[in-house]
Amino acid sequence: MNNDQYLIGLDVGGTKISAILVDETLSIISELRKQTLLISGRAIVDEAKELIAELLSGNDLDIVDIVAIGIGVAGMINFKEGEVVFSPNLPLKNVAFKKLMEDHFGVPVFLDNDANVAAFGEKYLGSGRGVSNFICVTIGTGIGGGIFINDKIYRGVSGSSAEVGHMVIDINGPKCGCGNYGCFETLASGQAIVRMAKEAIAGGKKTLILDFAKGNIENVNGEVVSRAASDNDQIACDILDKIGRFIGIGLTNIVNIFNPEKITLTGGVSQSGSLILNPAKEVVSQVALVPNSLDVKIELAELGNRAGVLGAAALALRELSS
Amino acid sequence: MNNDQYLIGLDVGGTKISAILVDETLSIISELRKQTLLISGRAIVDEAKELIAELLSGNDLDIVDIVAIGIGVAGMINFKEGEVVFSPNLPLKNVAFKKLMEDHFGVPVFLDNDANVAAFGEKYLGSGRGVSNFICVTIGTGIGGGIFINDKIYRGVSGSSAEVGHMVIDINGPKCGCGNYGCFETLASGQAIVRMAKEAIAGGKKTLILDFAKGNIENVNGEVVSRAASDNDQIACDILDKIGRFIGIGLTNIVNIFNPEKITLTGGVSQSGSLILNPAKEVVSQVALVPNSLDVKIELAELGNRAGVLGAAALALRELSS
Repeated sequence: MNNDQYLIGLDVGGTKISAILVDETLSIISELRKQTLLISGRAIVDEAKELIAELLSGNDLDIVDIVAIGIGVAGMINFKEGEVVFSPNLPLKNVAFKKLMEDHFGVPVFLDNDANVAAFGEKYLGSGRGVSNFICVTIGTGIGGGIFINDKIYRGVSGSSAEVGHMVIDINGPKCGCGNYGCFETLASGQAIVRMAKEAIAGGKKTLILDFAKGNIENVNGEVVSRAASDNDQIACDILDKIGRFIGIGLTNIVNIFNPEKITLTGGVSQSGSLILNPAKEVVSQVALVPNSLDVKIELAELGNRAGVLGAAALALRELSS
Repeated sequence: MNNDQYLIGLDVGGTKISAILVDETLSIISELRKQTLLISGRAIVDEAKELIAELLSGNDLDIVDIVAIGIGVAGMINFKEGEVVFSPNLPLKNVAFKKLMEDHFGVPVFLDNDANVAAFGEKYLGSGRGVSNFICVTIGTGIGGGIFINDKIYRGVSGSSAEVGHMVIDINGPKCGCGNYGCFETLASGQAIVRMAKEAIAGGKKTLILDFAKGNIENVNGEVVSRAASDNDQIACDILDKIGRFIGIGLTNIVNIFNPEKITLTGGVSQSGSLILNPAKEVVSQVALVPNSLDVKIELAELGNRAGVLGAAALALRELSS
């Protein structure tokens, strides 16, 4: 790649679509962000094309200056075919995203799920740099993962590995969106925070959560609970502590199975910081096996909400050179 | 390796110690088996030396004909140092097994845990042949695992990966030997079968299990329950069905995390065959994610109780050439 060549990363989420322009060292040149057009699959693909065109023209660049585009989508992805098989929060079903973009732009496009691109971001630009056996756990509305083994992403036989959110950790637990019961995701994700907060409010508990939600229980989300906890609201603190402990159990399973060097937490829930991280680490240190519990570092992501879009660019760079 | 050179595999278990002599294609030349001398660590090491000496002299061979020795031990192993760190069922603690054997025999010795050597056996000689992403789950008194990723064993940062028996699958479940609660091992191992059988007998349930245990509840073990189930004893069948379903939950977690091509079950409990395998497969097909549940084959081990000892020889061959 010459010095004057660039990569684009795209992150298609349930609320926002982000694009980033980086150089060959993955340094940020420029970025854009919009609301995702949830009308149809076609609208999303068109919006992605427009966002890239805008990013190029805003930087006096042409598509010939771009060597590859990486895209992360929140959903089930067939990496080899470059298709979005299904997405719970986006109107994308069996959409050949890679081909549609390649036909339009004439450059190589690589498509992966949101948890894998976040893992790429942290691995190449964040807390996973220099860590060979590295696992990134994305905790947002759902829970996903990205696994690096000997510095290489591990995809499994058909690209559907690392579904750590669908480990059963409570065989008698609540029903999960996947149809199973007691998945890690049902107990430790943003959904679980909202469920617990609503139960507390419905049970008449005195809490600032409802104030931060402007008096409307339907406005309760992870961010609101996190803000109440930062204001020392006891109910909110207890919920995040409980969530942190459930996260600790899920991480214990990962630590016992992978004996990794490092686990990094990214996604919305991880943005509650030490309120989540401390109880999670405490559980791992108490119940994971030795030496695994001593070997692993558990940290928060360094890239914040840019992990996905930067990771998409890192994915493109990595795939291009592999 | 010349045609007239050989390898030795050794399997040190809580009741039996086995040694096998194989040629460079891992074909069996001769084997020996004895009761493990549980007196002390020294006694076990001496017995291992004697068993190998006996195997050599019985085949008119000398140690110069042996290129390497592989050893599997039921316990926590530091693979790099060649030490048995700890064993729940053997008097081995911080024993430098590799060095003691190398000093005595003057040939390379490789030491690994019982679940990893069983995985080596199945990978190179059994149901894992030709399978790149392969997981072997050993279900006996405890539960262990061996993970092959892209045809290479995955050991983790300090050789303590694949502790699949210590995944929490029931956060409110029974206490495990590891100190944690609700580990896969507490619900789906031979220990769990014995616990359930004793509970049924103590509860006054009419069952052949006690007859097969010669009327003494202390004789109840996995084999006894399996024999009663083979005689269509309803209580025994129900216990194995329940164990099979718990195994299915543990395998679901593995399937969702690894998206492997194949999982092979070995160890004493797996010898109950379809009584265990069928309910386990049914659960995975019902609750694991698609496409993972469709991608994976779940099978019983092909090598039976020779998986460990043959796997130890396969480990030695593999490490020698790596």
